[in-house]
Amino acid sequence: MVSLEQKALEWSGVDPKDAVAIDEINLFEKLGLQTFINLSTNFYNRVYDDEEEWFRSIFSNSNKEEAIRNQYEFFVQRMGGPNLYSQRKGHTALIGRHRTFPVTHKAAERWLHHMQQALDSAADIDEDSKTKMINFFRHTAFFLVAGVELKNQNKGTGCKNCSHHH
Amino acid sequence: MVSLEQKALEWSGVDPKDAVAIDEINLFEKLGLQTFINLSTNFYNRVYDDEEEWFRSIFSNSNKEEAIRNQYEFFVQRMGGPNLYSQRKGHTALIGRHRTFPVTHKAAERWLHHMQQALDSAADIDEDSKTKMINFFRHTAFFLVAGVELKNQNKGTGCKNCSHHH
Repeated sequence: MVSLEQKALEWSGVDPKDAVAIDEINLFEKLGLQTFINLSTNFYNRVYDDEEEWFRSIFSNSNKEEAIRNQYEFFVQRMGGPNLYSQRKGHTALIGRHRTFPVTHKAAERWLHHMQQALDSAADIDEDSKTKMINFFRHTAFFLVAGVELKNQNKGTGCKNCSHHH
Repeated sequence: MVSLEQKALEWSGVDPKDAVAIDEINLFEKLGLQTFINLSTNFYNRVYDDEEEWFRSIFSNSNKEEAIRNQYEFFVQRMGGPNLYSQRKGHTALIGRHRTFPVTHKAAERWLHHMQQALDSAADIDEDSKTKMINFFRHTAFFLVAGVELKNQNKGTGCKNCSHHH
């Protein structure tokens, strides 16, 4: 079985070392909470205003303020800060919590497009941190694509009793 | 849709406050790395020697040393220490990484049985920390049961084209 990491690396094209470069320094201590709030706010403003309806509609059942908070709390927790997400919501369970979203390759690229724009416009983040973060985001996005794909494979297995019917 | 947390709380019987009591103090700073290594070693010694073959066999395709390391690195990361797990393996993705295991109610209870025994025999962990940890473990175990159950529900949905055949 090809692991989720192998697929994430292959599909993202991110070098394994670069994918974990966010751990070389404590980005939370370097950037501070407000920078993460700004980034996630900027990102979701773009997402909820996306001209591409297919992507925008993925988030139409989610509350925007909640989406922003979920994201920056997870980033803070993962990038060296306090466990804000887990203290409020429990396990981050990244794949499990995306189970109801259509995390396709195309959706991952659109997500990354908006995040790249959000990073580009973030005056409070230095270039080195931006590079580390976008590599982490790119790897993570395709880790989730791989996770969702495996879930769909499992569906197939669960359906083997009737697989000869179609 | 009933959330994973709601199911985890209902099935575990753990009070919501107690489920996150591990965040009231930094257990990693209090206990130190070696204590977590000892706990996971003790736990997996019990699991791999379990007289109940159905439970022991769940782990028969996993390397014991790797299982121990995965577990204590996750505990350290979640309980206030460095992101050891993520730096070595990527996202913790608790539900996704358990997708190949049969995480049933019965298996959760057996897992918790061994963890309770491991905690009971841990002279290097104070009673208050033990209480916080077992509540966290109990809540987490049933969070995973809920996650697996949802996955199986998705299987059913994925199979709807042929559902009239069986």
